Amino acid sequence: MSTKLNVIKIGGNVLDNVDNLERFLTDFALLPGLKVLVHGGGTIASEIGKKMGMEPIMINGRRVTDANTLHLVTMVYGGLLNKNLVAQLQARRCNALGLTGADANVIPAHKRPVKDIDYGFVGDVESPDQVNVPFLASLAQQGIVPVFAALTHDGEGNLLNTNADTIASTLAVALSRQFEVNLMYCFEKKGVLLDVHDATSVIHHLQPGYYQELKDKGVIFAGMLPKLDNSFAALEQGVKAVVIGDAADILDIVEGRKAGTRITL
Amino acid sequence: MSTKLNVIKIGGNVLDNVDNLERFLTDFALLPGLKVLVHGGGTIASEIGKKMGMEPIMINGRRVTDANTLHLVTMVYGGLLNKNLVAQLQARRCNALGLTGADANVIPAHKRPVKDIDYGFVGDVESPDQVNVPFLASLAQQGIVPVFAALTHDGEGNLLNTNADTIASTLAVALSRQFEVNLMYCFEKKGVLLDVHDATSVIHHLQPGYYQELKDKGVIFAGMLPKLDNSFAALEQGVKAVVIGDAADILDIVEGRKAGTRITL
Repeated sequence: MSTKLNVIKIGGNVLDNVDNLERFLTDFALLPGLKVLVHGGGTIASEIGKKMGMEPIMINGRRVTDANTLHLVTMVYGGLLNKNLVAQLQARRCNALGLTGADANVIPAHKRPVKDIDYGFVGDVESPDQVNVPFLASLAQQGIVPVFAALTHDGEGNLLNTNADTIASTLAVALSRQFEVNLMYCFEKKGVLLDVHDATSVIHHLQPGYYQELKDKGVIFAGMLPKLDNSFAALEQGVKAVVIGDAADILDIVEGRKAGTRITL
Repeated sequence: MSTKLNVIKIGGNVLDNVDNLERFLTDFALLPGLKVLVHGGGTIASEIGKKMGMEPIMINGRRVTDANTLHLVTMVYGGLLNKNLVAQLQARRCNALGLTGADANVIPAHKRPVKDIDYGFVGDVESPDQVNVPFLASLAQQGIVPVFAALTHDGEGNLLNTNADTIASTLAVALSRQFEVNLMYCFEKKGVLLDVHDATSVIHHLQPGYYQELKDKGVIFAGMLPKLDNSFAALEQGVKAVVIGDAADILDIVEGRKAGTRITL
């Protein structure tokens, strides 16, 4: 039986709220076993951008990463957020190490090809086969916990702004070759809801047949669809389970108590 | 005989000039054997601070790191500069990994005690004995090249702005327990000069007796004194040689050709 490893992704609702963040980091430090943290950006990049006189660049309603925006997210995600998360985990005796996909060439990517929109310095990750798993395994062996900022690189000197969910699923799939991986997406709700207006209507377990049924009925729609499609894709590539839930429930989720939406094949 | 390892520190005159930086990175990537890069900040932190409406904080003529300045240097040194150096080394097939002293708890430090001046969030490193050498040795074994931003942490959740020369000498001393370490300080001149007005008057070899003689004659003075005192201190703690010279000569220096000022006991 291979060793268990949890890949946990947090976003704005944890990063933007000091109390949520402190609680999450305390819980994360306590999680038993191997673990990897992936963080998005939250609102702080926009706030700092505003201070620097930058406005978000939008084309056809889509956010674009121009050179200045790339500098901004490199500073904020790769520097300010990442290094503070590391320092705060160290204070909780969790031996964290901050990484981007460029470091040790862990996550090679390429600039998203220009079709109708040029998204700018946005990265699409190469196959999970390209992830530097031996390096991550060596960290695991040393008890070192990787903390990933949502940046990759193209191997030609350019950093690339990259979707944090994608980084989490790519790492989870890649690590599945060597570990038994659970992937957790923390978001602002307790789980995937049966009724979007009832925060307590959490679906505890989702499998392909039931997912199809809920999609057909129109119960699951819009923003949840890509997240769930990506979750099932990760499962098909070897991830043991995906859990979507509240960062406040992370200890319950990891220790197998009923919390969040557990997605399996 | 233990394996050779070069610790190389670059500062503003490399970081602030695109041509110098490109050339240095190309040379650094070509250096044979084990190596560690340490970088200071250059002028870009001040430029970005200005854009954000920040002015350098000075007390009694000394620069102070208040909370906003710490955020700024964490963004710029730990994020923008460090991750771009990593990406640019990766493009040169040098498997770089960006680090601060907080990552993997590599360089524990403490906030400088307040005496006559409160320097703010400035770190004094603990003894070289506290450096996480096993982690750095594991990177070396994997062919991974650490790139250090001049930040440490206090183990209580605070990052600390830290002198890059000190980071370089602390790493060099710590690594000397396991490797044969050369420490190189790159600066704006070809080496330590016999005549400050003659850029070609480089002292090729400096040993304690000759250093004392030059100090007594007043040939070496002011800013060079702490740099050289620190160099001799590093040698006394096990570093094999310290070289002070021009980043443009780095290949000559490492390959033992006559360049820079070589300092030995």
